[in-house]
Amino acid sequence: MNKKSIKNVVIVGGTHGNEFTGVFLAKYWIKNPDLVERNGFDTKVIFANQKAFKEVRRYIDRDLNRSCSQTVLTSTSILHEELLAKDLNSQISSSDFIVDLHTTTSNMGLSLVVSNTSELTWLAASHLNEKFPDLKIYRWQGDEEGAFVDSLGVNGFAIEVGAVPQGVLRADLFEKTKELVYALLDFLNGDLSAKKEIEIYDHLSLVDFPRDSDGEITAMVHPKRQDMDFKLINPNDPMFLTFDGKTIVYKGSESLYGLFINEAAYYEKGFAMCLARKIEYKF
Amino acid sequence: MNKKSIKNVVIVGGTHGNEFTGVFLAKYWIKNPDLVERNGFDTKVIFANQKAFKEVRRYIDRDLNRSCSQTVLTSTSILHEELLAKDLNSQISSSDFIVDLHTTTSNMGLSLVVSNTSELTWLAASHLNEKFPDLKIYRWQGDEEGAFVDSLGVNGFAIEVGAVPQGVLRADLFEKTKELVYALLDFLNGDLSAKKEIEIYDHLSLVDFPRDSDGEITAMVHPKRQDMDFKLINPNDPMFLTFDGKTIVYKGSESLYGLFINEAAYYEKGFAMCLARKIEYKF
Repeated sequence: MNKKSIKNVVIVGGTHGNEFTGVFLAKYWIKNPDLVERNGFDTKVIFANQKAFKEVRRYIDRDLNRSCSQTVLTSTSILHEELLAKDLNSQISSSDFIVDLHTTTSNMGLSLVVSNTSELTWLAASHLNEKFPDLKIYRWQGDEEGAFVDSLGVNGFAIEVGAVPQGVLRADLFEKTKELVYALLDFLNGDLSAKKEIEIYDHLSLVDFPRDSDGEITAMVHPKRQDMDFKLINPNDPMFLTFDGKTIVYKGSESLYGLFINEAAYYEKGFAMCLARKIEYKF
Repeated sequence: MNKKSIKNVVIVGGTHGNEFTGVFLAKYWIKNPDLVERNGFDTKVIFANQKAFKEVRRYIDRDLNRSCSQTVLTSTSILHEELLAKDLNSQISSSDFIVDLHTTTSNMGLSLVVSNTSELTWLAASHLNEKFPDLKIYRWQGDEEGAFVDSLGVNGFAIEVGAVPQGVLRADLFEKTKELVYALLDFLNGDLSAKKEIEIYDHLSLVDFPRDSDGEITAMVHPKRQDMDFKLINPNDPMFLTFDGKTIVYKGSESLYGLFINEAAYYEKGFAMCLARKIEYKF
């Protein structure tokens, strides 16, 4: 891979209508395209789910960032996000790199969620990791495979920044996301070289809230676990606090890292946090 | 006023369907009524907007906490929250004290929003203020007068805790709200005595985001203003940061306190923060 082979880069914001950083960055760059233009390639900026943004909701009918699977793309669709996925696919699937902008209510700081296995994807992640020492890399192999917006192309990942509530712009995280995207564009316009070894948090499993027989949540993320994303959870560490004040501890035998702890959008998906191993990943 | 005159107390949670602290406290107390029973009076717990909770939205048709005005209550209603307001009114307007549980994405800590002028309301606020040194009292005289859920009774106020995202339970704030409600119930079951002078933040005005001619937001709350609720804003202090990085300062001549800074629900209402004076209030 060399820079001459990169002809089209895509920035997607507003995949989730209530994640304002991506929404307002997309709107800003659509109005000011010179800021994301690079002399080596074309950059297309897409404000993906405008209808969901108007309603300040993650989605209208179903999660767009779980709707970009081959199953949906090849089916007869009628749901809003399925139609959006098909439209996005026709617009961006032939691009050379897709970066999709997200926020989270979890204290994920500045992070990349990478599910793509391509070398260019990992070179870009490695470069950004070196340039931004606080940046964390999460290799996600969670629910539906290949259904992310950034799965539509051959290379790409999602940027996740937090903690920020849904429906809120935080200037600090807006600026950090902006810097990260500019650095990515510069990298893609450069010689594409980076270390081929990188520290990552490798997805292992999902942990749901404790629930009763009706499926109702019976406990909250423990105050000692709240905001502790990318921190180690050891056996018998507090995980949840019941509504009447009892602590529920981690029963696993292996120390693991907690991520996406108490993300608002995941209550309905049925998980309170993700667990991951920290590893040195060579590619 | 003495304790014998208090016969019915009402706790309302889930007035806003995406403010989970109140929702889950209401559900918890409905299942465990002994926790809010006091031997001097009856306590009714109401989970107000269950339909909005199911959709994890503030409201379905209109803000319930702006729908409890005489205008709505005496009109022919068809909207979901107007019907709810009428139902609430028939259930709770004859109660002796209403406490309505809210959360905010602003860094309001533990606070009361008081719009009622009754002596008992202020005695209760004064007592809690003495018992919880971190508790702040905001006298609100904002948008529609008398349209709050707690306006339906003769005495009452709202509890606001934050920062917490919409659709998220934070155990620390859940526990603090619980303690505050228990202390309120104990006060109402006691001799009702408290200092008749109290430090309050007195509502003065609302500040909107900078917007363009289409009404689109052109700037964010400044990083130096974000999370600075109940902190003084002096002339020429940073207020907003435009998307291209320019600082917009406070042009007022009087130093004032910022409250409800960057609350998610207020983007659509058209304000980025409230301004208030800190005063000693005697009643």
